[in-house]
Amino acid sequence: MGIGSGCLFCSPSFSGIRIKPLSSYIFPYFSFTFNPYQPHSLSFPKLMSQPLSLNSAPLQEAEADSSAAPPLFDYHHIDQKLLDNIVYDALVWSTLNCLLVGDKSVQRSATVPGVGLVHLPLCLLPGPFPETHWKQACELAPIFNELVDRVSLDGKFLQESLSRTKSADEFTSRLLDIHSKMLQINKKEDIRLAISRSDYMVDEKTKSLLQIEMNTISTSFALIGCLMTGLHKSLISQYGNILGLDSNRVPANNAVDQSADALAKGWSEYNNPRGAILVVVQVEERNMYEQHYISALLRDKYPFLLYDTHRIKSIRKTLAQVDKEGEILPDGTLSVDGHPISVVYFRAGYTPKDYPSESEWRARLLMEQSSAIKCPSISYHLVGTKKIQQELAKPGVLERFVENKDHVAKLRACFAGLWSLEDSDIVKKAIESPELFVMKPQREGGGNNIYGDDLRKTLLKLQEAGSQEDAAYILMQRIFPAPFPAIMVRDGNWSTGHVIAEAGIFGTYLRNKDKIIINNESGYMVRTKVSSSNEGGVLPGFGVVDTVYLT
Amino acid sequence: MGIGSGCLFCSPSFSGIRIKPLSSYIFPYFSFTFNPYQPHSLSFPKLMSQPLSLNSAPLQEAEADSSAAPPLFDYHHIDQKLLDNIVYDALVWSTLNCLLVGDKSVQRSATVPGVGLVHLPLCLLPGPFPETHWKQACELAPIFNELVDRVSLDGKFLQESLSRTKSADEFTSRLLDIHSKMLQINKKEDIRLAISRSDYMVDEKTKSLLQIEMNTISTSFALIGCLMTGLHKSLISQYGNILGLDSNRVPANNAVDQSADALAKGWSEYNNPRGAILVVVQVEERNMYEQHYISALLRDKYPFLLYDTHRIKSIRKTLAQVDKEGEILPDGTLSVDGHPISVVYFRAGYTPKDYPSESEWRARLLMEQSSAIKCPSISYHLVGTKKIQQELAKPGVLERFVENKDHVAKLRACFAGLWSLEDSDIVKKAIESPELFVMKPQREGGGNNIYGDDLRKTLLKLQEAGSQEDAAYILMQRIFPAPFPAIMVRDGNWSTGHVIAEAGIFGTYLRNKDKIIINNESGYMVRTKVSSSNEGGVLPGFGVVDTVYLT
Repeated sequence: MGIGSGCLFCSPSFSGIRIKPLSSYIFPYFSFTFNPYQPHSLSFPKLMSQPLSLNSAPLQEAEADSSAAPPLFDYHHIDQKLLDNIVYDALVWSTLNCLLVGDKSVQRSATVPGVGLVHLPLCLLPGPFPETHWKQACELAPIFNELVDRVSLDGKFLQESLSRTKSADEFTSRLLDIHSKMLQINKKEDIRLAISRSDYMVDEKTKSLLQIEMNTISTSFALIGCLMTGLHKSLISQYGNILGLDSNRVPANNAVDQSADALAKGWSEYNNPRGAILVVVQVEERNMYEQHYISALLRDKYPFLLYDTHRIKSIRKTLAQVDKEGEILPDGTLSVDGHPISVVYFRAGYTPKDYPSESEWRARLLMEQSSAIKCPSISYHLVGTKKIQQELAKPGVLERFVENKDHVAKLRACFAGLWSLEDSDIVKKAIESPELFVMKPQREGGGNNIYGDDLRKTLLKLQEAGSQEDAAYILMQRIFPAPFPAIMVRDGNWSTGHVIAEAGIFGTYLRNKDKIIINNESGYMVRTKVSSSNEGGVLPGFGVVDTVYLT
Repeated sequence: MGIGSGCLFCSPSFSGIRIKPLSSYIFPYFSFTFNPYQPHSLSFPKLMSQPLSLNSAPLQEAEADSSAAPPLFDYHHIDQKLLDNIVYDALVWSTLNCLLVGDKSVQRSATVPGVGLVHLPLCLLPGPFPETHWKQACELAPIFNELVDRVSLDGKFLQESLSRTKSADEFTSRLLDIHSKMLQINKKEDIRLAISRSDYMVDEKTKSLLQIEMNTISTSFALIGCLMTGLHKSLISQYGNILGLDSNRVPANNAVDQSADALAKGWSEYNNPRGAILVVVQVEERNMYEQHYISALLRDKYPFLLYDTHRIKSIRKTLAQVDKEGEILPDGTLSVDGHPISVVYFRAGYTPKDYPSESEWRARLLMEQSSAIKCPSISYHLVGTKKIQQELAKPGVLERFVENKDHVAKLRACFAGLWSLEDSDIVKKAIESPELFVMKPQREGGGNNIYGDDLRKTLLKLQEAGSQEDAAYILMQRIFPAPFPAIMVRDGNWSTGHVIAEAGIFGTYLRNKDKIIINNESGYMVRTKVSSSNEGGVLPGFGVVDTVYLT
């Protein structure tokens, strides 16, 4: 969930204005002068003198002091009443359509459905995104799907690439242990299923689409992405005339249906009508409704997929429960609480926090050893690590996995600069100019990246220590997307600010031995964050969900 | 919203059990021994010796002390894990499908959408209801629609019937003043539109369907009724095999579509493509999503009803806002905040609390004077008062309004005993046996009815005072429905108890002069309350929403 980004306009003006009560609700037609979708000229204050030569895209350097940057629009010119009305409509739409999460201020909302609900923090209207880059990102999805699959089959590459990380990062080490065991017993995954999401930003200076990261486990926000598309299309259909917007410029989105479809087809491929889909969940989950929606789709949409008397049943278990209630039957079938499992759908297990004891690791190993389809397998999980992302960006590595030269070129074109901390030249440059880099730990979940002066200090500390601890991190080129003005709505209040967007394109993949059953681009989700914030996780409170308006 | 009822089983055992956290969620198939849908024999402990002779249905008398009543089922025999799972599924379904209201513990939830949301308090599974009585109630809907319309045209009848109430009840008096003014200017409502709901209970001893009240203004729970139907059908489709239930025994429900349809057709009949539907709302409304859903239907479902370039626009205003922003144009058109109004849809204005100052009364008068279609008109509102209900129950009165003798018989068959406090014999009996009566004030909204010893004391006080204050009340036969065991879910917790059900059948009616455009039975909503509670309003916390299982 990490999101690397730059701050061109520091300290954007914020006004946390409470929306008016219901009684003022109305659909008026007021004049509206603000249009963030018109092209605007962004003059970068100063370019530094020594651009670095990178793998594919040259690293952009911008001065952190952006006080001289011209404002893109004047908040005072926006009709407040109109905005109040659009915000009100957005909040109503969110409730009617379940764009909801558990409110973190309500403890029970993470475990008890139906209580403590609040709308997702969201961007009121979509931000501009170049259509060519959007198409490029969509086209990359099946290519990345295939790449992940190919890399996952090279156990030696995974083990070797991650060998230094193993000694520095306990979590990666445990994952590698499971992977090793699978290699030792020569475990084959004939049926391989992935619901992945590749996240991108558009670097403003080079006008290039650059990959932030590849998520191969617990890929979330498929429903929320679809709902945001629905919300923005609905608002534009109501207010588009006033705003000068066309709802057709917001791309269609079928992410949640494609996610459910991939799980259903995987279930079908496993070919056990009694089999259930095991949703591996965290003990607390405020974003539970998206998971439930997928289970409801599986139950209600696919009853006739395989046998006309069976619906696809989901069961939800934590890793600890799987350890307690799970076993592998003599034929290799995973059984949990008496249910044979066809597909293990991980919505947990991607962060060390999900493994507080040995129990959870036993559960992970048990599932991996079984014949159940894993979404994802341990190999797919490892392919999604930042270290592998960095390894694949090295010259000549992609070619080992991808034969199609056009695909290699397309993949490489979206790789940002990525380095291991063994590269002393880069480390030196990062200490000198930390604002041009992001330091990323292997850990997932948002909020873990290191920026600016912290980055410099961390690098210096690692140099002094002289240990292998540096292998727990990679360095990445910091990407500077164009900020745009936006209205963010959180907890029923709206505020304005300059934001940057990160677009995530879902990919679904299913193959059975040599037969590729699914290899699709499968919808999208967009997160937008204040351009002065370094982290973009939506639930931790840094970012908001969004869509794109193709320009 | 008042609900007259009896307590056959006092102090039902309650267990406020927190449901288990998400991690225990699963769809198991456990054995389940409890089936409340099987016929059970209810032996009433004792019948009193002097049954009263009433208008149509004999009054039932039951002893309040029900400690000897046999338990209908043993809670200990229910599989707790199964119940936990069904409850969990119900809570998830409620969230995914917007069976939600603002949480009263969150102040902002009554004014700001999207915050402080919680599932409706609900009955986990439908309660038994005799199919013949259900059909009878449905058949009555168009007959009641027609009756309301006919009575509304007899201004003299309304004024005379309510003349004593006028001097005792300030609220009714103000409504009558507006009505008088309309009579004085000979205001005709050519287009008359109603969304009504007639509420019934089945009296266990006489096996008769008896009307509790007729709601002609601000008739709510059309969406919630439909959602409850969806919830119960969904749960039964999942668990019906274990529970021995068939989802087809829960009647279909189209209440919210029919409500929107009536408003849309009324709007069309008014024939102004620029006209809006004015939703008159309370300042605070936690049940706002139902109203918004209807507005969303109007906006999105009927864009081509009249002119293919116009969607039906809703605007929401409080009575005070209508006073401030409203005016009548020279051609009689109501204009509010610059919007011409085709239909005024009251979701407020039914209780004295909605009129804290003269401003609100001015607004009500202004709307009534305009040419806009009122849903309902002041006449329709008055027809729904309890005093008129009681007048209509008098011998010979129905015949003045209904020519069809079959219809008269059907209407009369559902009238409970209803008396004015001028009837000294009945007052004497009520003082002697208060448990057989409900004392109802003109006020609406639930929580106002008087029972038992309070009833006796109030009657004695009114006798001593010798004033006209007694005209603010009517006496009604207390109906004793058969209690049944149920599981109620509130704030994410479930509890068990014996409950009684009140079924509300919606009716929609639209006519333009002699042309009847709509006269339909239009879906339903059911409220269930603990049989020891006297009041049944859902939002005040006494009752829960439910459906019926036809037996």
